[in-house]
Amino acid sequence: MIDPRVASGLRDIPPSVMIPRERMLASFRRTFASFGYLPIETPHIERMEVLTGKGAGSDEVLRQIFDVTNKGGTQGELALRFDLTVPLARFVARHVNELGVPFKRYAIGSVFRGERPAKGRFREFVQCDFDTVGTESAVADAETAQVIHDALTAAGVPEFTITLNNRKVLDGLLDTLGVADKTGPVLRALDKLAKIGGEKVLAELQRGEPSIEGESAGRGSLLSEEPARHILDFVERGRGKAEVLARAEEQLGRHPRAAEGIANLRSILGLLHAAGVPQDRLKIDLGLARGLDYYTGVVFETTVNGWERFGSVSSGGRYDNLASLFTERKLPGVGASIGLDRLLALMEEAGWITGTSATAPVLVANFPGVDPAVPVRLAARLRAAGIGAEVFPDPLQIGKQMGYGSARGHKVAVIVGPDEQGREVFNLRDLATRKEDKAIPWADLEGAVGRALGVTEGARS
Amino acid sequence: MIDPRVASGLRDIPPSVMIPRERMLASFRRTFASFGYLPIETPHIERMEVLTGKGAGSDEVLRQIFDVTNKGGTQGELALRFDLTVPLARFVARHVNELGVPFKRYAIGSVFRGERPAKGRFREFVQCDFDTVGTESAVADAETAQVIHDALTAAGVPEFTITLNNRKVLDGLLDTLGVADKTGPVLRALDKLAKIGGEKVLAELQRGEPSIEGESAGRGSLLSEEPARHILDFVERGRGKAEVLARAEEQLGRHPRAAEGIANLRSILGLLHAAGVPQDRLKIDLGLARGLDYYTGVVFETTVNGWERFGSVSSGGRYDNLASLFTERKLPGVGASIGLDRLLALMEEAGWITGTSATAPVLVANFPGVDPAVPVRLAARLRAAGIGAEVFPDPLQIGKQMGYGSARGHKVAVIVGPDEQGREVFNLRDLATRKEDKAIPWADLEGAVGRALGVTEGARS
Repeated sequence: MIDPRVASGLRDIPPSVMIPRERMLASFRRTFASFGYLPIETPHIERMEVLTGKGAGSDEVLRQIFDVTNKGGTQGELALRFDLTVPLARFVARHVNELGVPFKRYAIGSVFRGERPAKGRFREFVQCDFDTVGTESAVADAETAQVIHDALTAAGVPEFTITLNNRKVLDGLLDTLGVADKTGPVLRALDKLAKIGGEKVLAELQRGEPSIEGESAGRGSLLSEEPARHILDFVERGRGKAEVLARAEEQLGRHPRAAEGIANLRSILGLLHAAGVPQDRLKIDLGLARGLDYYTGVVFETTVNGWERFGSVSSGGRYDNLASLFTERKLPGVGASIGLDRLLALMEEAGWITGTSATAPVLVANFPGVDPAVPVRLAARLRAAGIGAEVFPDPLQIGKQMGYGSARGHKVAVIVGPDEQGREVFNLRDLATRKEDKAIPWADLEGAVGRALGVTEGARS
Repeated sequence: MIDPRVASGLRDIPPSVMIPRERMLASFRRTFASFGYLPIETPHIERMEVLTGKGAGSDEVLRQIFDVTNKGGTQGELALRFDLTVPLARFVARHVNELGVPFKRYAIGSVFRGERPAKGRFREFVQCDFDTVGTESAVADAETAQVIHDALTAAGVPEFTITLNNRKVLDGLLDTLGVADKTGPVLRALDKLAKIGGEKVLAELQRGEPSIEGESAGRGSLLSEEPARHILDFVERGRGKAEVLARAEEQLGRHPRAAEGIANLRSILGLLHAAGVPQDRLKIDLGLARGLDYYTGVVFETTVNGWERFGSVSSGGRYDNLASLFTERKLPGVGASIGLDRLLALMEEAGWITGTSATAPVLVANFPGVDPAVPVRLAARLRAAGIGAEVFPDPLQIGKQMGYGSARGHKVAVIVGPDEQGREVFNLRDLATRKEDKAIPWADLEGAVGRALGVTEGARS
């Protein structure tokens, strides 16, 4: 016997998780499509040089790559994708001439990272990405946040906060302080603010970031105390609404790059207001520095109110030049990714996932002694009327069939015993209350079942 | 610059193919769910021993396996799945105690085979599988064919033929001829009948199958001429409707295994009749021997009328013992797989794929000199009314924006220039006819656009 387990860090997804997952994916697809994003798909397997090209992935991600080889192939030529953004860049570079710009695409698919397995962290997980390529317009920036808003709302997330920043504001601040050459370590330190607090960030801003081994790398050499305090203060006062932008403008309005960033955030807030996104869903955080190696303009992060410990469920931002590894053509863009599995885990824990584990609401019994053509015919009629119906395959004792239906989450059962068969009637049992309506004529099948399910006839098409 | 191509045998799927593909997948999911099949997902990566266990895959498939390794991993431990059936067997063995039987599942996902790349053959392709595990009932056998019928019909395939056989009939025939020990090579020869014709099959039935190198392996040693002719004759007269079963019963009715197979096919035809599947969609072919190493009862194959050269678009059958590699528990089952990519390629060539390449029917122009908040607000209102609307991100010359809309397949454009903005009206342009309705009040936006698209307000929810 072979052990039927999956490899470490991988998982089976049972129907109870898949049913809300598919519902959520269908909802995301509808939202993306309603904004004109077009679906594309790229292979799970990419050529290794596409994935490992300079800047394609962080060192950490590259260490986690899965090699793929088949008989006759050469080790190191192929690998599994670790995100959907590098494949987008390759896709756009390859097809931009036929597709034209702006090109808006969404993609939903598994990505693979050989991370150390841990609770809630998997080596294969699904990303839901949407991007607009070939424009620098703030309309596309704002739309990205709007799609996050509409997608989460449609998926049933009650309250969440989309946090925005523009990388150019911090760039401007560091430039006015004369420390633009230290952007990398400064932003990495700021990124830890929520996690380790102001005191420790202040220390790290002066000392430099600890190396991977946990020792101080820069040995007191990053910033002197004054600019470090100034930066920390700017960032700590940089969280809020539009008033944050007014204050930043006073401080940095004459720095062209910072002014550009502030104006961009203002435009975005204005357009989101026009789009009807409630202002209490939006927050400015001038210290938000995620995607440091990657994003060049606006950045987004989204947390669910009261469930911030799950981290961001949708993040993204603007990049100046998406496909520079693959083409001379400059292709700016903006987009975000929704973390399906993280969001589902959060919603599950919050109790926001409701609904049955069955896909068809009706179980049609297969009564011992009755021609199975009878349940097969009745079920086909229900399906033709848009009502999902499952026929129990074996003529087991009827109690067992009802037990199966209750356990699976069917709502009602249609039962025809030998007596009912002769009279061309059926009994309709509510599987929750166990109440049974007796002797309903076959002619009234669709009507009676539809009423019991509370659907208008043909409404479930 | 890195070449943005994909590896040999892999492909990018552009929006023009993805849009009908997603529509078809959504339609399959609805059909599977309407019969009570539940969705599951298993990882793309499986442990190697799960995939290479005895009988899991044919030698050919095992030669095509893609190994997967990450840093720190050992070569030969992990691989990409080559079908969805072995993962189903593993899944069921692992979870059968929680899930109970019957267990009906569907799964849609990519599988990987390192085949020699050729036109229309890819190393990654999508399978759509549905199976009922834990029952020997003919109701489940018939339902499998019914799902094929309903899924293809719902997907818009006009005419097709589901061919059925039961492996037990041929088993009985070979047993009465005293050549049951030669089942393997005999069935492999019969499988070629449509391709190479009766004469060549007759020769192969006597000579034995050619080895892979193309030479005769058995050297005249398989069957003598009389049983070879008898088998070929039986199979050639074994194609048709119910009358084929009557003739087979005369010949083999006293052989218990053959009689079982004939009775099973009769039940299936009867149940499919009850289910409303038109009889002209069904055909018996007593020579159909597909899935030889695998299926033990009914087998199915489906061709599209007039497009038989594409081969079977949906195949499957019954297996006695799905998960014998992984559990002592005997789990019989029946199911089939729909070949999404083959079916789409066929429908594309047949011209049955219609519809636009856009996902949102409305383009809202971004007129130079008009506050972009105006198109953003109007588009949000359309979406809230269930009408997909895309805002052009940049205030380019209006002709360019209309060209983009026509090329993308948008149906209408909503245009607000500076003059219209002042008067709070918009122009509605039909992008096919280029006719424009002028100066419609903003208040009538949803109504006017809905009427132009021929949808009732709120119908596209």
